[in-house]
Amino acid sequence: MTSGTSRISGETAERLAAVAHELADAARIETLRLFRSPELRPDNKAASGFDPVTEADRASERAMRAILEARRPGDSVLGEEFGARQGDSGLTWILDPIDGTRAFMAGAPSWGVLIGLSDARGPVYGIIDQPHLDERFEGGLGRARMLGRHGQVPLATRRGVALADATLMSTYPEIGDAGEQAAFRRVADRVRLVRYGLDCYAYALLAAGHVDLVIEAGLQPYDVAAPIAVVQAAGGVVSDWQGRPAHGGGRIVAAGSPELHARALELLNHD
Amino acid sequence: MTSGTSRISGETAERLAAVAHELADAARIETLRLFRSPELRPDNKAASGFDPVTEADRASERAMRAILEARRPGDSVLGEEFGARQGDSGLTWILDPIDGTRAFMAGAPSWGVLIGLSDARGPVYGIIDQPHLDERFEGGLGRARMLGRHGQVPLATRRGVALADATLMSTYPEIGDAGEQAAFRRVADRVRLVRYGLDCYAYALLAAGHVDLVIEAGLQPYDVAAPIAVVQAAGGVVSDWQGRPAHGGGRIVAAGSPELHARALELLNHD
Repeated sequence: MTSGTSRISGETAERLAAVAHELADAARIETLRLFRSPELRPDNKAASGFDPVTEADRASERAMRAILEARRPGDSVLGEEFGARQGDSGLTWILDPIDGTRAFMAGAPSWGVLIGLSDARGPVYGIIDQPHLDERFEGGLGRARMLGRHGQVPLATRRGVALADATLMSTYPEIGDAGEQAAFRRVADRVRLVRYGLDCYAYALLAAGHVDLVIEAGLQPYDVAAPIAVVQAAGGVVSDWQGRPAHGGGRIVAAGSPELHARALELLNHD
Repeated sequence: MTSGTSRISGETAERLAAVAHELADAARIETLRLFRSPELRPDNKAASGFDPVTEADRASERAMRAILEARRPGDSVLGEEFGARQGDSGLTWILDPIDGTRAFMAGAPSWGVLIGLSDARGPVYGIIDQPHLDERFEGGLGRARMLGRHGQVPLATRRGVALADATLMSTYPEIGDAGEQAAFRRVADRVRLVRYGLDCYAYALLAAGHVDLVIEAGLQPYDVAAPIAVVQAAGGVVSDWQGRPAHGGGRIVAAGSPELHARALELLNHD
């Protein structure tokens, strides 16, 4: 729940955001080239079960890393497919070249490219990009907006929604282990509407004020850095299920308002 | 599993399809006007629980019915929001002004406008329209195509996919009653990938060859008429869980190939 923007000057912020958009533009080309293409052949990277990765994931991350090497050689990089590169600037780019590879494989436009930028305290800036929809959600470094086909729209979470009227999103109904499922159900049983299956796009909808809560478990740092920055910039509150910073991954609860966040935390932790 | 196109001449087919596109164009205006708008205020039409309907549903159906009254006064009409009107032509327009009202409310672009046309034997033509994505899936009366921002793409289901490699879609993980859930799980446990939450868009992805199976229960006739026509026109097979015609609603299994359809039916009916 850090913001950290104070230590980055306006001019630096402009430059960093420009690089982030350059990354997102490059990832769009690589992902759209293979989205819904018969040439897409997923590999399974899990020892057991099915954890798909595609050439689109790899090409998207490669393109972004090449830009960072040229433009920001001193920054650290953490990417889902090609791991960590250590820099010395104190800034880390956190990349998920395709969040929602399963949706990507199924032709469903709920996947996204995630570009997060963190300092020592956590995410300070993020982009959630949905290339097929031409929707780019940007938050942090003084920005909170969606850029799309019809221009830009400011991002602001919805306030004043009671839990009983809230819309809750999660990627899978089978969230985490049995205890995590039970905790999730305590919230899910009290809201008006639960929707599944939207991957990172759920956080984009939260930041845009269309849904009220996103609760997930079992996440990686590259799944959460950009969503945290975007949701916080839009006025939302994000933490792990104990109310601590969530950027390390694991369990996350993101809410449109502090009141709803507090209420969800309470239910996640008490029968 | 009827086609019924043989009794409609080419010239009549042209006229009917033109009317269907006129309906879809009118529904786009009404739905996009309120999609993601803060003015959208859902009402609850259920006596218990939450069965939302919005002004967008009503305005979309009103606009389509007005066109049908002018252009096709002899045809019957069945719509989700305003019920049935009896005609004498032997043809029925089956309208779901917003399939996936919950997704619509959440800002997620998986809802669609469904326009089906049936004769006495079942659906002969359908449109699944996703206005926000600008994707219109059309099937029947000699057509099988997706019309979008980048022109048109022929629709054809994916063939030769074994059950173990298949992608299965359903709107809710909590499909129907306990028996229906168990039957669904028998299929779900054997496929490679299960995705939830896409409403009618799941059938569009099936027709476009991106997913292999859609299994649902508890459907209404207006939920299935257009999807049946589109999937069949693309080479897919659709029936209820006993292999009979599915256009009455209830339980549905739609598959990209006859082999996969047969295998899914088998699993739905036997432990």
